[in-house]
Amino acid sequence: MQTDRKISLEDGAGGELMEALIENDILPLFRSEVGEIQLEDLDDSAVINDIVLTTDGHTVKPIFFPGGNLGSLSISGTINDILALGGIPIALTSALVLPEGMLFSKLKRILESAAEICKETSIPVVAGDTKVVEKDDLDEPIMTTAGIGKRHPLLDENLELAGGRKTRWLSDDNLNPGDKIIVTGTLGDHGMTILSEREGYGFQGDVRSDITHLLDVMDAALHIGGVASAKDPTRGGLANTLNEWAKKSQVGIEIWEEEIPLKRWVVSAGEMLGIDPLTVGNEGKMVLAVHPSHAKKVLHSLKDIDKSSEAAIIGEVQEDVEGVLLRTEVGGRRVLEPPVGDPVPRIC
Amino acid sequence: MQTDRKISLEDGAGGELMEALIENDILPLFRSEVGEIQLEDLDDSAVINDIVLTTDGHTVKPIFFPGGNLGSLSISGTINDILALGGIPIALTSALVLPEGMLFSKLKRILESAAEICKETSIPVVAGDTKVVEKDDLDEPIMTTAGIGKRHPLLDENLELAGGRKTRWLSDDNLNPGDKIIVTGTLGDHGMTILSEREGYGFQGDVRSDITHLLDVMDAALHIGGVASAKDPTRGGLANTLNEWAKKSQVGIEIWEEEIPLKRWVVSAGEMLGIDPLTVGNEGKMVLAVHPSHAKKVLHSLKDIDKSSEAAIIGEVQEDVEGVLLRTEVGGRRVLEPPVGDPVPRIC
Repeated sequence: MQTDRKISLEDGAGGELMEALIENDILPLFRSEVGEIQLEDLDDSAVINDIVLTTDGHTVKPIFFPGGNLGSLSISGTINDILALGGIPIALTSALVLPEGMLFSKLKRILESAAEICKETSIPVVAGDTKVVEKDDLDEPIMTTAGIGKRHPLLDENLELAGGRKTRWLSDDNLNPGDKIIVTGTLGDHGMTILSEREGYGFQGDVRSDITHLLDVMDAALHIGGVASAKDPTRGGLANTLNEWAKKSQVGIEIWEEEIPLKRWVVSAGEMLGIDPLTVGNEGKMVLAVHPSHAKKVLHSLKDIDKSSEAAIIGEVQEDVEGVLLRTEVGGRRVLEPPVGDPVPRIC
Repeated sequence: MQTDRKISLEDGAGGELMEALIENDILPLFRSEVGEIQLEDLDDSAVINDIVLTTDGHTVKPIFFPGGNLGSLSISGTINDILALGGIPIALTSALVLPEGMLFSKLKRILESAAEICKETSIPVVAGDTKVVEKDDLDEPIMTTAGIGKRHPLLDENLELAGGRKTRWLSDDNLNPGDKIIVTGTLGDHGMTILSEREGYGFQGDVRSDITHLLDVMDAALHIGGVASAKDPTRGGLANTLNEWAKKSQVGIEIWEEEIPLKRWVVSAGEMLGIDPLTVGNEGKMVLAVHPSHAKKVLHSLKDIDKSSEAAIIGEVQEDVEGVLLRTEVGGRRVLEPPVGDPVPRIC
């Protein structure tokens, strides 16, 4: 850091600039030998003493939108990060920072949405904190959630069925050639909904965030077996998820455009705004890498669940591919890059 | 909630208004049967499956001050909350929300201070998150830390020496008549320093926050034995800590004014501003309740450590006292109330 540069929105956008900030300036300070999955692994969660541990600060704007709000986003996001490593969440913490003058009824709605997911999943918030900041200093509430999880009892079996893997968890470096890539539903809904609300675009269609916890979805997949890795495609969307997998697992991935589930309004919105829905964040989807012997069975079991009824096998890990390639509907192949900045900021 | 009132600074101030917000509006939503120390216990940390779990969002203003900054505050605060229940911290998470345009060098200083404590204590940050928010929407960075800990191996022995207690942890409801109250050093330094910096009072003296982790201090006390409860006197200071203890343990506590360690400049500042230093937050102190048979031995062992060399026995739990009474230097007794709002906001 020679020059005293200023922090930009892209530094927190989940793309390449954020990666550089983290790798060059944060990791060297906090490197540690402790833990099975560490900070430097930059996975969805960390693992230490067989405890899965994760955190996310939520600065979504607006705080209310079709399909959810700050509260449901925060709780389900943390649950999904724990699930993505093969954990079963056991408890959460929640720290609120509120702007002075915020309407009490808004806080109440946020908390009720959060509590609803806790109730549905039986995952309690056991520790919390509340701070209030002068209204000139903060525009909207921020909710930071952390969570702990234990190891899913079927993880060993899954990794064995998946042909033996490098790690004991569904980590980013665990893909092998032949693995099928499964998404649990349509992509880009959350990010495009936030954008539509914030900018007042008024797109035609079921404009609605996909926010949901994926406890039942992950459980269904692990009960079939053969799952090698899972990832929560939030900031940077599918494009970021696949590129992280390719880089960390040192494999190439081919994705088939015609197989990717996308809502019609998301496609139109993307075309209108020049934003690729594959680079836009999701909050109720998982991307799975599954051994080819079990991929179809996993897919069928996902399709039986409402919230993953549009699951699809969208590609595979291929020996002769480098990075991430998208095979287009007309038959060509193009590189699917991770976003540099963030096409849609403050979506989570 | 009949009327749509607005959130005020006092709702996050650690006093009675915050207590009302939490008890009336947050707890009923998140009540759960899971966990040994739960959200509704409102202790320094929670306990579930013998894992100690805690979180705190930090909105201190200014972010740099004599003796520390946002980074050291955040990390040591979380470590101390885990220690306060009888845990040994094993890992932390950290979620940063940064304002766009923040100088990179400032971020670096904050992270370096945080990392220094991690290194010194061998407690790693294993998971993190970074968000950037438009500069009009946030004035200063917010750092939210969560942490997990395991049970201190000497806890059973301590509670046994302390005459057997209601819980297996150093929880707020664990005081018995006869217990001596020990503070590990001078009170009010942190809050008064923040106030001095923010308002530019320029007090004369060693104006400096007491921010520090108390890993060695708690370990020393537990090695002597007889510790029944411990509490981190942050927001609301000693007054809040003692009143929480009295209420949750259903005991009365008498405190002896002449025994309370206070720096001279803190006393002067308090007199000048009309703020009782006992209601002001600390960030490197612990308040202990110790069985009378071991209190002096614990005190001596604390005095051997630099950062607790000014430790003192400042009072005791008494059968014939209700609530918290302060015996003044001239011999009278007055009620020591918890602060209603917060005499010094945004100190942590």
